[in-house]
Amino acid sequence: MKSDLDNLRVVLVATRNPLNIGAGARAMSNFGARHLRLVHPYEVAFREARSAVGAAELMASAKEYATVAEAVADCRLVVGTTAAGRRELQHELRQLEQGGRTIRNQLGARRVALLFGSEKVGLSNEDMSHCHWLIRIPTRAEHGSMNLGQAVAICLYELVRSGKTAAVKNGKEHAAAADLERLTQVLFEVLDRSGYVKPRVAAATEAKLRRMVRRMNLSDGDAELWLGMLRQIQWKLGAPESRPGPKED
Amino acid sequence: MKSDLDNLRVVLVATRNPLNIGAGARAMSNFGARHLRLVHPYEVAFREARSAVGAAELMASAKEYATVAEAVADCRLVVGTTAAGRRELQHELRQLEQGGRTIRNQLGARRVALLFGSEKVGLSNEDMSHCHWLIRIPTRAEHGSMNLGQAVAICLYELVRSGKTAAVKNGKEHAAAADLERLTQVLFEVLDRSGYVKPRVAAATEAKLRRMVRRMNLSDGDAELWLGMLRQIQWKLGAPESRPGPKED
Repeated sequence: MKSDLDNLRVVLVATRNPLNIGAGARAMSNFGARHLRLVHPYEVAFREARSAVGAAELMASAKEYATVAEAVADCRLVVGTTAAGRRELQHELRQLEQGGRTIRNQLGARRVALLFGSEKVGLSNEDMSHCHWLIRIPTRAEHGSMNLGQAVAICLYELVRSGKTAAVKNGKEHAAAADLERLTQVLFEVLDRSGYVKPRVAAATEAKLRRMVRRMNLSDGDAELWLGMLRQIQWKLGAPESRPGPKED
Repeated sequence: MKSDLDNLRVVLVATRNPLNIGAGARAMSNFGARHLRLVHPYEVAFREARSAVGAAELMASAKEYATVAEAVADCRLVVGTTAAGRRELQHELRQLEQGGRTIRNQLGARRVALLFGSEKVGLSNEDMSHCHWLIRIPTRAEHGSMNLGQAVAICLYELVRSGKTAAVKNGKEHAAAADLERLTQVLFEVLDRSGYVKPRVAAATEAKLRRMVRRMNLSDGDAELWLGMLRQIQWKLGAPESRPGPKED
């Protein structure tokens, strides 16, 4: 299936922990990015990550490179990620939300590389020098450094969130006014039989219940559910002693 | 420092892997969420997670609960997360971007709980019955299930990415989860006495009522109104065989 992220190359540089490579691969699979590139990862990390949860195919096709230059050679936009704050940056720094918009636009037409540095030190100045600009995830100044797998996941989410993903509403039809009124009447009747309604303020109570029922913002199904419950209670309470309820069928 | 996410309670339900609790805690620290709640986590997972990278303080103040009901009792909006797709959902489902906007608005004024289920099966139907609605991260249909730590990170990013939480909206205070649960119990009791509840499916009926009550989107005042009405009906229906009703003259 053609994905919005087919033109994206996720580049992990000098990753040490196989769990992080695996987590990155899994997030890529979740969001439909398919091309993972690794720049001199630790041997063990790469091998162990091949068993990444739910991303075996993606890991099998991951490519290994000796240098950042080679890993991004065929890309027309190269963007690095950074926690910033630690050092003077020589680069333009964009917030993920703004930078993500540009990346999305570019992805429609050309290959884009997104670089993530190692767990300990992030991207080196040399690595960054291959980037057109950098993006930063808006973490707190006091604790800016993110887990690598989570950083990958957040960046990919930002790239797909505004995409043409189908709406997943579970839209329900609102109850018809007639059904709400029927519900109001049965509720009033049940409360009346229970002694809740004071005769002198019965009309005010009825109006109060009517407003309350409308505030419930009921769907068709829920209105029916409520009516069923109230009729059962009504039946259990038995016939009124002397007078009929405010509205008998 | 006062954070935008001070009113957020991140609730991890039945988490198995200490690395995931640790990763969730770290993401919380990155984005300034401080209150972690755990519902019957595996003992070992909880203990080992206390050494979570860069989030020791947060883990030390994490609270443990026996049930979802207790973990969300003081929250006025309870939102579950789901990969969906696996089963028919009884709940309204919102995309993270849309649902996140609502959560942000609410966080300015009231406590919001955000629930994450276990690694294997996510939130159970019973867990979900405590939620007002669910959110879904827009992953691919072919591989929807995310790593728990990454899911937490993405949700928190969505909550902070647009900066300051919006100003408090006018309107009524939402009912606390504890009051909604009390209401659910009294309603169940009334229906049980009325013969509405079939013993063999009592648990399913209770979950159904719980979901319905959450869909009512009740204000503080309306929750109180309903409770008053139901207690009156309960009194009228008479005491059950073994114990007195809640309101005796």
